[in-house]
Amino acid sequence: MNIGEISYTNIIPLYFYLDRERLMDQGATITQAVPSRVNALMEKQLVDIGGISSFSYGKNAHNYSLVPDLSVSSFGKVNSIFLFSKFKIEELDGKRIALTSSSETSVALLKIILDRFYGVEVAYKTETPNFEAMLNTYDACLLIGDDAISAYRKRGSYNVYDLGEIWYQQTGLPMIFAVMAYRNEMETEQGALLSYVGRSMIESKERCQRENFVPVIERAITEHGGTFQFWNSYFNGLNYQFSGEHEKGLNLYFQLAVECGLLKTMPSIIKYSYK
Amino acid sequence: MNIGEISYTNIIPLYFYLDRERLMDQGATITQAVPSRVNALMEKQLVDIGGISSFSYGKNAHNYSLVPDLSVSSFGKVNSIFLFSKFKIEELDGKRIALTSSSETSVALLKIILDRFYGVEVAYKTETPNFEAMLNTYDACLLIGDDAISAYRKRGSYNVYDLGEIWYQQTGLPMIFAVMAYRNEMETEQGALLSYVGRSMIESKERCQRENFVPVIERAITEHGGTFQFWNSYFNGLNYQFSGEHEKGLNLYFQLAVECGLLKTMPSIIKYSYK
Repeated sequence: MNIGEISYTNIIPLYFYLDRERLMDQGATITQAVPSRVNALMEKQLVDIGGISSFSYGKNAHNYSLVPDLSVSSFGKVNSIFLFSKFKIEELDGKRIALTSSSETSVALLKIILDRFYGVEVAYKTETPNFEAMLNTYDACLLIGDDAISAYRKRGSYNVYDLGEIWYQQTGLPMIFAVMAYRNEMETEQGALLSYVGRSMIESKERCQRENFVPVIERAITEHGGTFQFWNSYFNGLNYQFSGEHEKGLNLYFQLAVECGLLKTMPSIIKYSYK
Repeated sequence: MNIGEISYTNIIPLYFYLDRERLMDQGATITQAVPSRVNALMEKQLVDIGGISSFSYGKNAHNYSLVPDLSVSSFGKVNSIFLFSKFKIEELDGKRIALTSSSETSVALLKIILDRFYGVEVAYKTETPNFEAMLNTYDACLLIGDDAISAYRKRGSYNVYDLGEIWYQQTGLPMIFAVMAYRNEMETEQGALLSYVGRSMIESKERCQRENFVPVIERAITEHGGTFQFWNSYFNGLNYQFSGEHEKGLNLYFQLAVECGLLKTMPSIIKYSYK
């Protein structure tokens, strides 16, 4: 069993306290990569379980299931997925928007928001993320992650929209950015190890929460700089559960993605039942 | 490019200071696994560069080359590869020896030592490593790693032989246990990244040496327990270079393995030339 480990900060709590040596003694391997690569490796069956983007789960739901109780979500502001715009969001009809090439989930979220919530029709083009270059040529741009955070500091008089906040205001449901999924074959082929990995990730998350993310924050400061306060509000703004509300939120996201023609069929959300 | 990372302690210095985030931003992934799994993943082309056992390099040398200046070697005692025997080593002719299933390099080393240096002929059988069970049934047993270290404490009146020490006494050359190898395709397909990875590993090793392995020792204590003194002598007993002496040692090991019928053809040792 190959476990995919996303190298980004927001998902660290699910992996932080894994007993890697014990996992490897049981025959597991762990592959670290950027998010889009983990999605792709799992599609190619080179990764068997891992944190993948919600949109990637939606496209592959016939082959995947969820490890229960785990996600990367937000109830409201997520502070790292921003639309920067020269116009008010409701005035974007007929305008041109540059999309980051870094994320499918956020791109689909923006398209859902503009189409279903604001009824505006726009022309999209995918570009390498670059705040200034994008706004030289386009009326608005979508950025995520570090690109979004640094652009926010330079936002000047642009209108800035936090997509997690808009989603929550419009739906009353959390936005699920990533889920912990596994390829269905694992249940029959490596059920015992799958259970162990799932439980270990839940324990890791719960321990991080009990500790108020302090050791995780300390590692983030070492690796990325920034203040304790910044990372504290970062981790506390994210939610790592997968409750009934999360399932409703994810289902609505998929339903709207189907309505917008972004997904071909409505994905089923199947969760692992521990034996 | 997928980088194989062995989850064992002895090779940590080559990976300790890698800038994992920068590697991943350049498109690399890192897969952590036990040594035999890294060997196997590289044979299956699922890993492109990694620390592999010398014997695995010997079997695949037509497809692999070495990252220069890197190895896991010893000049003398290695303290974790022991033959425990009811008889003196020169009296083992006609006896039965249990081999650990954990290592090909050490198994070949034992066979070379007994055949070429002592001229004794013995019957071998591979068993799951278990000190007591092996010596209930056999005249001697080969153990490596943690199994060897814990058996050493229970050795009683058995004769104990350190294979690293015998090799050095008999040849005057270091014993090379692992090398840093890459699949030849990487040179043309991902030359720039290959150079960066190789240089980063050399820098990591050199920084660990400058720091007298103190941060590495601290991590080993956290992960495995044991005293500072134990891990200090462990890391200082190992050698991480690949000099002309190392090349001679590895060549002699391969030559004797061919003479003993353990390798079919004499492997060539090719090293990467930085452009």
